Amino acid sequence: MQIANSTHDPLLRSWVASADHHADFPIQNLPFGVVCSIGESDPDPRIAVAIGNFALDLRSCYRAGLLRSLDGSKESVFEARVLNPLMNEGPKFWSTLRNWLSLALREGSALQAELEPHLISRSAVNLSVPVDIPDYTDFYCSIEHATNVGKIFRPDEPLLPNFKNLPIAYHGRSSSIVISGTPVTRPKGQRLEAGTIVFGPTSMLDYEVELGAFLGGPTALGDTICLEEAHSHLFGICLLNDWSARDIQAWEYRPLGPFLSKSFATSISGWVVTLEALAPFRVPAAHRAADDPKLLPYLDGAALSSAGLNIEVEAFIQTVAMRSASVEAQPVSSVNARGLYWTFAQMITHHSSNGCPMQTGDLLGSGTISGSEPGTQGSLLEITGRGAQELQLSGERRRFLQDGDTVILRGRCHAPGARSIGFGESVGVIMPARI
Amino acid sequence: MQIANSTHDPLLRSWVASADHHADFPIQNLPFGVVCSIGESDPDPRIAVAIGNFALDLRSCYRAGLLRSLDGSKESVFEARVLNPLMNEGPKFWSTLRNWLSLALREGSALQAELEPHLISRSAVNLSVPVDIPDYTDFYCSIEHATNVGKIFRPDEPLLPNFKNLPIAYHGRSSSIVISGTPVTRPKGQRLEAGTIVFGPTSMLDYEVELGAFLGGPTALGDTICLEEAHSHLFGICLLNDWSARDIQAWEYRPLGPFLSKSFATSISGWVVTLEALAPFRVPAAHRAADDPKLLPYLDGAALSSAGLNIEVEAFIQTVAMRSASVEAQPVSSVNARGLYWTFAQMITHHSSNGCPMQTGDLLGSGTISGSEPGTQGSLLEITGRGAQELQLSGERRRFLQDGDTVILRGRCHAPGARSIGFGESVGVIMPARI
Repeated sequence: MQIANSTHDPLLRSWVASADHHADFPIQNLPFGVVCSIGESDPDPRIAVAIGNFALDLRSCYRAGLLRSLDGSKESVFEARVLNPLMNEGPKFWSTLRNWLSLALREGSALQAELEPHLISRSAVNLSVPVDIPDYTDFYCSIEHATNVGKIFRPDEPLLPNFKNLPIAYHGRSSSIVISGTPVTRPKGQRLEAGTIVFGPTSMLDYEVELGAFLGGPTALGDTICLEEAHSHLFGICLLNDWSARDIQAWEYRPLGPFLSKSFATSISGWVVTLEALAPFRVPAAHRAADDPKLLPYLDGAALSSAGLNIEVEAFIQTVAMRSASVEAQPVSSVNARGLYWTFAQMITHHSSNGCPMQTGDLLGSGTISGSEPGTQGSLLEITGRGAQELQLSGERRRFLQDGDTVILRGRCHAPGARSIGFGESVGVIMPARI
Repeated sequence: MQIANSTHDPLLRSWVASADHHADFPIQNLPFGVVCSIGESDPDPRIAVAIGNFALDLRSCYRAGLLRSLDGSKESVFEARVLNPLMNEGPKFWSTLRNWLSLALREGSALQAELEPHLISRSAVNLSVPVDIPDYTDFYCSIEHATNVGKIFRPDEPLLPNFKNLPIAYHGRSSSIVISGTPVTRPKGQRLEAGTIVFGPTSMLDYEVELGAFLGGPTALGDTICLEEAHSHLFGICLLNDWSARDIQAWEYRPLGPFLSKSFATSISGWVVTLEALAPFRVPAAHRAADDPKLLPYLDGAALSSAGLNIEVEAFIQTVAMRSASVEAQPVSSVNARGLYWTFAQMITHHSSNGCPMQTGDLLGSGTISGSEPGTQGSLLEITGRGAQELQLSGERRRFLQDGDTVILRGRCHAPGARSIGFGESVGVIMPARI
């Protein structure tokens, strides 16, 4: 993929005033989402593209006839309330649309006057979950996370022997996926507490720093996706916070895995950054140690040379007291996804290797992203050693999340010679358990 | 619930010729499904009711104005290609529709002449998956199954301490749920074989005898469903075969549970038997032993006195050689669901206890249903002790399923004073792995 003179050209400038200096959404990004106006007569969700401080309303552009140059009639794409019809079109159309948007929004575009009426201030819209998510799968791709957690739960065998041979995963619950900004109610559940089984609000509420990958281009029952084809099924990436109740998890997870400890809420960021926008930030898959088992052929191939994603993800916490004192959210986790032991391409290939149908809109979580250095662990479970140590915040301490705490995930991409782009935020505030 | 003079009255007879002597679908049953005509000009899926050897096409009844006496306009229900809009209406409408059907189809009904044109021979239709299934959850509710399997995988600790305190479950994959009759391709996968990690067709393909419960009446994020309300969210029951690849499962399942070992296919029967039709077969939840832990209050209550389901489920195998020699499928598992340690009401209540939204169309599997006697184990894993012993069939032996084997599940309900009803079949034939 060429970078210069392309939609990624770092010199590209937009006529949209706020775009060129925007940390997340310059013209090199162009992520897709679903917006609805706040308190307006038209609260209908519609698909849009983020550019600087604005959202370009693609439905109104379509209705105004501005998108007619794109091949064929795409009414189903631009009149949809979710991104699925767009995601279903496949990489060729994704690319065509991205090119059109890049040309239309760049400085000097003849379309500026026609497009301006379709820009909405992003402060005037709410985002909704941008995709109808048929199935959600959460992987476990960070070897540091698996090792950190394994040390807590299985000190004699922290890293299980299958980890280095296949990307471990479990099916997640799609019904509890919520958009950034949705408050997260502390869940109740069953747990073992000092030898007694009790039911009540979790006392070990945690976040997990993850990326989510949205799939486009469905497969039929029995079909598989080879590693070289995997990226053609990957529409884009979002931030994902896999909220977890550790006490509920510890009690319920044997032998079938996490269930209610996760399914009370999973937050995602609203803007989906396309794989094409991430082209300048694709890197080789993480290095495998010399004594790691050799990859089986179906999980190995040339595609791995650019299957890693150089995305820096950070988690921040702001407590009620910090908010009252106007103290900014404090960074607690900072980690790069390029270190993941398994890439999204391998996750897709493995997931479909048994003939399981992949559907447009399916979401794959990376699993908690952690590093080996202090400050790089992607969950409080790891940071505090399951509550054994306290995390120091501004004037406060945490073993796990307390009511009123806000957790914010942010993601950014930097690379030499490329314009940096970002993911916006995934935000959630903890509400007290219902009585 | 009164039985006499109701839709369950064992003396009720239907004007539909084949109904009164039909083992599964007399007028006391009236299960719902989705049919499409074979080789006709109208292959559109549409909702229907099974009666004897026929399906009553509810869409054509609706279009003919026959259902206009039902309250309000229900176009969305009767014009749908799936049962979801019907399931979304809730128990009052389910009951109203059932009563109307029972009156309309019984002997002496004034509607006979008008309804007759809307009966289709069931041999002239295919069934499709009758429900758009947003999320699928598979439980693990048979204590005998959990113990049998635990003895194989964890001889030192067959039954984990959480089992008797909560219904264990994992999220399943909804994209690979298929209708009875769909061939099941032997999946490939990664497994540990004599110390070497290999990728290829499973050599331990198995069936699992289960029931599936379809939910109606959605809940919002954060809402819970108490035990007394649980049945008002349960639309009906089907047969479910949770095909499993035991070698893939053993290698992948730690620590997050089964994944690709299950997601290649899950077969369900096409006719959904409503909870109302099952009223005569509701029994007390299975007896808990005196030294079992006391149920936590949220999983206990008066509802348990009729939360068990007296449903006899059988699995049959027919090999290629048996088919060639016209030897009937041979019974291999025969077990009653009334023995399940956890009831569907408890599964629903537990599932929603953390605020996880329940959606119309969600499917809950019971987990493999096994008993303690020989012949009552619901999987080959248990019958053969993970292949240690062979199962004797007519002139053949099996440790696990071979290509060409057909597995058939059947379910029947019998109770004193009640007309017996059945579930039809869930059938699947094993196809060789793709090259």
